[in-house]
Amino acid sequence: MNESDRRFEERFARAVDGLLDSYKALGGINHIEGRQLPSLQQVVEIIGDLESVLFPGYYEKERIDRLNARYVIGEKCARIYSCLTQEVKKSLLHTEHCETAGALEEAAAERQAREIVLELIEELPRIREYLYEDANAALEGDPAARSIVEVLLAYPSIRAVAIYRIAHFLHVRQVPLIPRMMTEYVHGKTGIDIHPGARIGKGLFIDHGTGVVIGETAVIGDYCKLYQGVTLGALSVRRSGPATWNPEKRHPTLEDRVTVYSGATILGGNTVIGADSIIGGNVWLTHSVPPGTRVQIEPPYLIFREANGRGPAIRRPIDYQI
Amino acid sequence: MNESDRRFEERFARAVDGLLDSYKALGGINHIEGRQLPSLQQVVEIIGDLESVLFPGYYEKERIDRLNARYVIGEKCARIYSCLTQEVKKSLLHTEHCETAGALEEAAAERQAREIVLELIEELPRIREYLYEDANAALEGDPAARSIVEVLLAYPSIRAVAIYRIAHFLHVRQVPLIPRMMTEYVHGKTGIDIHPGARIGKGLFIDHGTGVVIGETAVIGDYCKLYQGVTLGALSVRRSGPATWNPEKRHPTLEDRVTVYSGATILGGNTVIGADSIIGGNVWLTHSVPPGTRVQIEPPYLIFREANGRGPAIRRPIDYQI
Amino acid sequence: MNESDRRFEERFARAVDGLLDSYKALGGINHIEGRQLPSLQQVVEIIGDLESVLFPGYYEKERIDRLNARYVIGEKCARIYSCLTQEVKKSLLHTEHCETAGALEEAAAERQAREIVLELIEELPRIREYLYEDANAALEGDPAARSIVEVLLAYPSIRAVAIYRIAHFLHVRQVPLIPRMMTEYVHGKTGIDIHPGARIGKGLFIDHGTGVVIGETAVIGDYCKLYQGVTLGALSVRRSGPATWNPEKRHPTLEDRVTVYSGATILGGNTVIGADSIIGGNVWLTHSVPPGTRVQIEPPYLIFREANGRGPAIRRPIDYQI
Repeated sequence: MNESDRRFEERFARAVDGLLDSYKALGGINHIEGRQLPSLQQVVEIIGDLESVLFPGYYEKERIDRLNARYVIGEKCARIYSCLTQEVKKSLLHTEHCETAGALEEAAAERQAREIVLELIEELPRIREYLYEDANAALEGDPAARSIVEVLLAYPSIRAVAIYRIAHFLHVRQVPLIPRMMTEYVHGKTGIDIHPGARIGKGLFIDHGTGVVIGETAVIGDYCKLYQGVTLGALSVRRSGPATWNPEKRHPTLEDRVTVYSGATILGGNTVIGADSIIGGNVWLTHSVPPGTRVQIEPPYLIFREANGRGPAIRRPIDYQI
Repeated sequence: MNESDRRFEERFARAVDGLLDSYKALGGINHIEGRQLPSLQQVVEIIGDLESVLFPGYYEKERIDRLNARYVIGEKCARIYSCLTQEVKKSLLHTEHCETAGALEEAAAERQAREIVLELIEELPRIREYLYEDANAALEGDPAARSIVEVLLAYPSIRAVAIYRIAHFLHVRQVPLIPRMMTEYVHGKTGIDIHPGARIGKGLFIDHGTGVVIGETAVIGDYCKLYQGVTLGALSVRRSGPATWNPEKRHPTLEDRVTVYSGATILGGNTVIGADSIIGGNVWLTHSVPPGTRVQIEPPYLIFREANGRGPAIRRPIDYQI
Repeated sequence: MNESDRRFEERFARAVDGLLDSYKALGGINHIEGRQLPSLQQVVEIIGDLESVLFPGYYEKERIDRLNARYVIGEKCARIYSCLTQEVKKSLLHTEHCETAGALEEAAAERQAREIVLELIEELPRIREYLYEDANAALEGDPAARSIVEVLLAYPSIRAVAIYRIAHFLHVRQVPLIPRMMTEYVHGKTGIDIHPGARIGKGLFIDHGTGVVIGETAVIGDYCKLYQGVTLGALSVRRSGPATWNPEKRHPTLEDRVTVYSGATILGGNTVIGADSIIGGNVWLTHSVPPGTRVQIEPPYLIFREANGRGPAIRRPIDYQI
């Protein structure tokens, strides 16, 4: 080993020491000596199994038929049961400052996790009823959609909504961490960011989807339709609002059969969009509208000029109407 | 086994039965006893091989040189030929309600799939001519781009457009499912959602790209440039339009050398943006403009106040001009 | 072999020949006989190791405790050192038109790469200090966030910003290609597109994040907060600007504690958003504002009508105020 190599090695050893010191100095963003956290990799594998039993025959390599269905599905459900129970248990035992749960707490968490995961598997047929409506809403809602098969193989909406529905089930049962890990995973895959706390009726279709944000306390009725870039968000600063202001409900409510076109932003926990309303593209809405309302931005004036910069600038409204 | 375990097991078995019943009750979102569908995993692997033969030397682990090129590329093409033929065959045999094709149909579908995939491989040099223009358009169009190598290694645009061009080839030959699976895969990776039905000239550059939507019947000329969040979409509700209204053409046309800045929305099948036009950020456009037009939103008035909420609100136009 | 098979084979062979010819005809988008380029797959694996030593205990399968920490972390650092050195070396040796570096240049590049990567590992504790502030900013900035653990397991912001900080370190040391490969990888995963050239203070939180674009010469102070769809971009066409126009600085500056709400676009290298300012959703801003300013769009007029199209259209301003 020459002198230069030796110096590199010494610096390397000191650098690793520096990192280890930094773990002691900065709590929180390292998790050493802590309880094991749920594993993102495991959660992703469980999501794969859940998608497979929700939509059998679509994502497996082998054909599923009447003969093998019971075994294929049963085996996947058993894996969901045992793996998800372990991850939920880790989540339940995780609390920020308490790392000292004893064997009794461990056993209680295991029982609770088993119960929650089994209830989830029992709930899957009802979740599938919702997803059936979601898939058909996509087929009806997009003129470019050719078949339910295409919706299941090539639409981000059905995937994002399916995982949201699973995550919401776990969120309602107060499982920490895992619901958000699930929805964030599918956010990364689809650009659709649905908080597991949101309450969403059946037959939701989100076309294209990139940039959609649905906040924690949003409520969406049946058969609603959203386009890319729609935000159902919180008012960031408390307005001097009405007496009905509810700090717990920060995000809006869409009643049944509401359509929201691309780029629209609807904000605030007291904002209720009445049934059958249509909210136009780019609308910015912070108060309620009654059922059956169409809202659009005032057709903006555009300024036209020649590309060479010569000639007059012409100011003209557009004639758009939803 | 204790009593509690036994009860869990019984509930588990009933839950699996419930799922199996649900598959019988709800058709469409399960695919049992059906013909095998194209496999997303296979399609993704084929995309990897296609990217490799389109841009050899960029994505492989081994160096490609004059000596091994014929073998490396030939082997990848052979794999594309055999794997994609199988997936295309499955797609051709898939129809919603017909699951009973006999051996004759199978053989015909195999022949047709072989022909289509071979034609695709024969077409690759011409697709590369388009991609050469696409890559150079990125280099010329982004002041931050340093080299063609950087464009190929680190720009989402070239990847999204390459896969779109393959998918479009298959779409034109009426292959079901696979074209959309391909473009949706790359949509998930890049945030760029191009329907395989769109017709796009050479030299397209999409900067940043997240949130871009290009609809099924959109037409884009040569050397166009789009930024993040641009929608080329359909008018959702039929306007009482002119006699030239064409229900088949729902999305707009950009002629050659059109630039569309971020967040702009252009809607409608009769909307034609003339050559060399520049459409400014956030513009909402639903009618045609002649060649050489610049369109921008009327500089919006903004309201300025001090962050502490005291002091007057000042309303001021901005002086932006594209 | 029958006649049809033979014809297919001949066409296949000719198609491969056509592809090989196309590589000769079109330079740039193939890289044959060139120096080996950095491998995206390797870069992705290195990113995984870097995330693991930056946030130990969060992403590994095994628990990290005081006993094994030195070994687990040391082993990962050693892998980062050797793998990243190889990729940085390839990047340094890569130049568009010079493929003929001899053994001397190779040795020099190896030494330079070793030095840069070692400096990066030495810098990790300081990067962690920034990330500590970033993670806490997320916890404080999002009412839906429950714990630092949730932020690390389920927020795209911390991941995008961590990789940006690594990439920026390499960018400043003029490593080609790899910084952009890193940030583009995380752009694909999160929808957050930060150029490695941007300069960003501590405590940055990007909520939701999809569609965020931060340009090459942008500068962001400490404790800033951005929402989805925010662009810090370049003015595309040179305005006849003031004498202070700086062609090198194309993107804006945010001073400390600036908040920018969703969909806002801030453009231009001379645009400085003063400290403690709040920029409202959808604002389009191309000039500077002094510290402590709130900017919002003029509350837009909306047009309301009944969904059946009957009844009058009502034009009404909204009463939004940030």
